[in-house]
Amino acid sequence: MTQFINTRDTVVTEAIDGLLRAAGGRLGRLDGYPHIKVVLRTDWNRDRVALVSGGGSGHEPAHAGFVGQGMLAAAVCGDVFASPSVDAVLAGILAVTGPAGCLLIVKNYTGDRLNFGLAAERARAFGLKVAMVIVDDDVALPDLPQPRGVAGTLLVHKIAGALAEDGADLDTVAAAAQGVIDGVVSLGMSLSTCTLPGAAREDRIPAGMAELGLGIHGEAGVEQVPFADARGAMGMVADRLAGHLDAGPHVALLNNLGGATPLEMSVLAEELLASGIGTQIESLVGPGALMTSLDMRGFSVSLLPLDDARRAALAAPVAPAAWPGCNPVSAVDVRPLPDGLVPIKPMPSADPARRAYLAKCCSLFMGMESDLNALDAKSGDGDTGSTLAGAARALDAALDRLPLADLTQLYRAIGLELSQTMGGSSGVLLAIFFTAAGDAAASGHGPVAALRAGLDRVQQVGGANPGDRTMVDALMPALDALDDGYGPAAAAARAGADRTATITRAKAGRASYVGADKLAGHNDPGAEAVARLFEMLAAG
Amino acid sequence: MTQFINTRDTVVTEAIDGLLRAAGGRLGRLDGYPHIKVVLRTDWNRDRVALVSGGGSGHEPAHAGFVGQGMLAAAVCGDVFASPSVDAVLAGILAVTGPAGCLLIVKNYTGDRLNFGLAAERARAFGLKVAMVIVDDDVALPDLPQPRGVAGTLLVHKIAGALAEDGADLDTVAAAAQGVIDGVVSLGMSLSTCTLPGAAREDRIPAGMAELGLGIHGEAGVEQVPFADARGAMGMVADRLAGHLDAGPHVALLNNLGGATPLEMSVLAEELLASGIGTQIESLVGPGALMTSLDMRGFSVSLLPLDDARRAALAAPVAPAAWPGCNPVSAVDVRPLPDGLVPIKPMPSADPARRAYLAKCCSLFMGMESDLNALDAKSGDGDTGSTLAGAARALDAALDRLPLADLTQLYRAIGLELSQTMGGSSGVLLAIFFTAAGDAAASGHGPVAALRAGLDRVQQVGGANPGDRTMVDALMPALDALDDGYGPAAAAARAGADRTATITRAKAGRASYVGADKLAGHNDPGAEAVARLFEMLAAG
Repeated sequence: MTQFINTRDTVVTEAIDGLLRAAGGRLGRLDGYPHIKVVLRTDWNRDRVALVSGGGSGHEPAHAGFVGQGMLAAAVCGDVFASPSVDAVLAGILAVTGPAGCLLIVKNYTGDRLNFGLAAERARAFGLKVAMVIVDDDVALPDLPQPRGVAGTLLVHKIAGALAEDGADLDTVAAAAQGVIDGVVSLGMSLSTCTLPGAAREDRIPAGMAELGLGIHGEAGVEQVPFADARGAMGMVADRLAGHLDAGPHVALLNNLGGATPLEMSVLAEELLASGIGTQIESLVGPGALMTSLDMRGFSVSLLPLDDARRAALAAPVAPAAWPGCNPVSAVDVRPLPDGLVPIKPMPSADPARRAYLAKCCSLFMGMESDLNALDAKSGDGDTGSTLAGAARALDAALDRLPLADLTQLYRAIGLELSQTMGGSSGVLLAIFFTAAGDAAASGHGPVAALRAGLDRVQQVGGANPGDRTMVDALMPALDALDDGYGPAAAAARAGADRTATITRAKAGRASYVGADKLAGHNDPGAEAVARLFEMLAAG
Repeated sequence: MTQFINTRDTVVTEAIDGLLRAAGGRLGRLDGYPHIKVVLRTDWNRDRVALVSGGGSGHEPAHAGFVGQGMLAAAVCGDVFASPSVDAVLAGILAVTGPAGCLLIVKNYTGDRLNFGLAAERARAFGLKVAMVIVDDDVALPDLPQPRGVAGTLLVHKIAGALAEDGADLDTVAAAAQGVIDGVVSLGMSLSTCTLPGAAREDRIPAGMAELGLGIHGEAGVEQVPFADARGAMGMVADRLAGHLDAGPHVALLNNLGGATPLEMSVLAEELLASGIGTQIESLVGPGALMTSLDMRGFSVSLLPLDDARRAALAAPVAPAAWPGCNPVSAVDVRPLPDGLVPIKPMPSADPARRAYLAKCCSLFMGMESDLNALDAKSGDGDTGSTLAGAARALDAALDRLPLADLTQLYRAIGLELSQTMGGSSGVLLAIFFTAAGDAAASGHGPVAALRAGLDRVQQVGGANPGDRTMVDALMPALDALDDGYGPAAAAARAGADRTATITRAKAGRASYVGADKLAGHNDPGAEAVARLFEMLAAG
């Protein structure tokens, strides 16, 4: 079993019950399990023409997913890929048909035609008005004796459903349905077969090939064609369909046969609209999984000429969430990028004391390079020293560009420099530290309080708390003690850094992926760097 | 290439453009391809708190599919499974943030946290109000240092989105989002890995096993567990989640990780609601593909405690079609089967002449058995004679039960007998023929006109036209001539039957699958049976 089912025999009844429980009370079923599987609207009062469809299961959401206001009154579900029985169809008809009558929408498969057909006769013998239409939208072969009914069926459901909802009589609804059937054409393509419940997937389609002109029951396509990419695939489908189109606007229904990802389906939508028939597509239903073939990685395109009546019917709101709506196709609305992506360079300003202070810090980090690399190599990839030294070199070279006289601007400018020159997570985190500190300084915080605010933000973004074996373990106590001077700050930083050697289970940062034996006894290199910085500042 | 894409490098931008064109003008994007991929509402006027989310692609419809009224103002899309850049996030923030500010909803991955975090700082430097929440709903491990953000993110989008839509201020929206994050727990299970664009699928999960506690980037689950069926799988997930639940009602979000079929997802919904935590689930979002991992055949369950504010926020209507709604969970509404499935037995009545006539017809069909079988064997499976003879024997045995004195009832009764005793397509078609003839007779048609009406219905249901090499080729001309007597009817039937020997391309029925060489020179056995019947009747 490679599927989320229980048994092949119960998959359809269990799936229907799951559908019903999740439908918010909108849907019910007849008490006929296991043979009679009829899903019906609970809010249906038989005052209009009832639309009934169905057929084998395995095409979900078709058809039970399309039961609801504005679409079907009932769906008669067979087992997977098997027609429902005459009794099941009759039960569905009898359960929902009132004086306005019933329209059966049947896909063109022999079993469905016969069983729905006989059920219709038996229902008529009760005096019910029953009409039946047969959907045969597949154009896989130019002269197919019995074209299959595939995803175009959904357009019949929707357009006939809107008319029935509006109170049209049976003849009108049936004529509209037949009109859709006469006009709609569909074609599918697939890169895989489908997996029948409880079975393995047939491996019929070789690599580099696709099947064109397939149905929805896992049968082989009418031909295998080379497959290169989405553009070529959709181009081939569009070319075949083009021969069946009149001039004028169409609605397209882009159907996922089950196994294509939403990403692929959106690429296919783009290719459909960019294809040779794209200009004839006024509106689009989907892309979405509407008439599937279990998990087949494939798609189908259905096309129907539009007139105002069909436009209105397609746009009418419906209850079934499985109907994705019908949207007018639009050009891609491309908006200009906002201003502000290129950071404004701060105006340089002079402050010799600050310049010397910063130069000293930079020099210190440059001098720690090999020590910190060696420390990092014991528990990491040995580059902490180089990362910090590289950033220090870059900052040192930028000193003359910095707004040294304005602390708020200076914090922000350091953040910007670091974000542009220092790679990796630590670069982003230090950039956040200084940018947020600048923000806080701009809001009136003093120099130390601003740095504490920066650290808060680093913790929120980086997720590191004290005890997580990161530079926070040294930086937080240092900043907390800094109002008392560099001496206490340095002592606090050193104590914090040394404590990291005892933390053998890191909860954040890269060390969280490293085993305890490699962490024990070694200070975290980031925390060590912070401790050394404050020790140097304390030493004057 | 086994996917419907063009190139790995263009898959995301092409998919976004496809999404936008199909969104009916609701969505646009920034002009930043390929590096800046920001989808935004075209109807957004910055008058409320802007929700911005995003992250790597490959999780569609998340997040671009959830941009729209009531949910996100913008989505920032990275490449597949890769965080978007700081510039891209900043562009998204700047494009949609007005005086009310902006809430960033970020899944807990380092790259996303850092890039969204730094972008937030840069946006704040412009004076914008920007809050950020980090979703970490995954409970795959009891004490995960950095729990991942998975499908629970959608509940954050929805609930925060409803508040923002209502005009709540940034603090309120952010607090509600954080409240959801604090409350929501998620767990996933999968039967397969996912297929990265342009790559082959990794075959990591052996047959009979599933991965439990996986993320949405194809990474391995925290353990491999034996997989037997949907019930066991969901039971295991429910058990793990149960330990994280408080008493009281919850909303569940049942997410398709991409490759499970709708049929499987409905079975899983049923199993979730029947599981040990089922009684704690008051409402359900999905099942549906909301936060996918490309084509992974898996699911996840997210659970969030409910209160009235969350109920209202979840129920609020939204524009994005990808949001499947949140429905109250209900018991399965099972309705009694309608009356009429057990056909009412007609009252027998006597008419000796009709009895003799019918007996003679039955006898004739019994006598033709081996001839027709032999004829059928030349182009089919050689059972037409036996099928008809079997039906004739059953009908002959039923003569005393039939309403012989009332032609309307008699036609219907014959139809009923044949539907119950005669297998296969021909049994259904003959049942339709007689049932429809009874219907027509009840409407006032004469005996022959009623049979013609029956034939019309057979043609509609069976799809056979004259020239299609079926019994229609003999029956239609016979009925057309029958008003002139049996002689002309027999001649017409014989001519029609003999003509079938020249029809080498059948368009309906079983013979449509048979090659021309096997059809040429042999009458269709059904048509031959009809001709012999009328010849017998003409002979008196």
